[in-house]
Amino acid sequence: MTVQFLEDYAVGQIYHSGRHRVDKAQIVAFAKEFDPQFYHLDEDAAKNSPFKGLAASGWHTAALTMKLCLSSDFRPAGGIIGVGGELLWPRAVRPGDALHVEIEVLETRTSRSRPRQGVVKIRITTLNQQGDPVQTFTPTLFVDRRSPEN
Amino acid sequence: MTVQFLEDYAVGQIYHSGRHRVDKAQIVAFAKEFDPQFYHLDEDAAKNSPFKGLAASGWHTAALTMKLCLSSDFRPAGGIIGVGGELLWPRAVRPGDALHVEIEVLETRTSRSRPRQGVVKIRITTLNQQGDPVQTFTPTLFVDRRSPEN
Repeated sequence: MTVQFLEDYAVGQIYHSGRHRVDKAQIVAFAKEFDPQFYHLDEDAAKNSPFKGLAASGWHTAALTMKLCLSSDFRPAGGIIGVGGELLWPRAVRPGDALHVEIEVLETRTSRSRPRQGVVKIRITTLNQQGDPVQTFTPTLFVDRRSPEN
Repeated sequence: MTVQFLEDYAVGQIYHSGRHRVDKAQIVAFAKEFDPQFYHLDEDAAKNSPFKGLAASGWHTAALTMKLCLSSDFRPAGGIIGVGGELLWPRAVRPGDALHVEIEVLETRTSRSRPRQGVVKIRITTLNQQGDPVQTFTPTLFVDRRSPEN
């Protein structure tokens, strides 16, 4: 798949990924390493938590979202490099969920401080198999401008 | 360590974690699973990237920040559960960095929709061994109110 430059992006474009199925073993393994709270680790105990059942760490959802973005048709030249943005988890990820992402271009502009790059603001929505959003992330990315040799 | 309830939090309080040292193997293992871009995977190739050397995925920094928060003296009753917030990466994490977090209470209030809980807004700053911030995250958390039996 060919990569995209700043000049290829326009507000309203939407990009898509394939799917990643999350199982209980993945949820527990991630939680053991990074977020060992009982509602991410123990299916029975999690029933008596605010999640009412085992739920993936939000950081696991975020990391899987990154993986899905890299497998999508959103392919900025130079890679997906951002300074951050607003991250929200409207709904928990459960064992058996199959996630995919939709990436919408919200804004594009040239950069005064980086003449060979531009700034692209996107909204990455991570959805489960019912089409319900489990995460939104709205980062600002640096994207290379097309140069004479590209 | 005893847990904290909504009534125990006040604006301006600061909590601290221990340290976690990040090495090259951890950076590469995380990137292989979740963020396989060359500047997170290959030390030599990364020299010719915007990072000018191997850098941890921002999502690795975020996941390690969660782990550090859970080892800190910030211990809300019911766990650290949030809906999200603003996430920024001002600086890359490098092999050999030793990270810790500082958590500042920015706001506390009761919740109209959840009478047994309150809302606590915090800023989690992740710092390297030079004291330079590598990440800030400003989430809104739900925290239990003290009840007669606590």
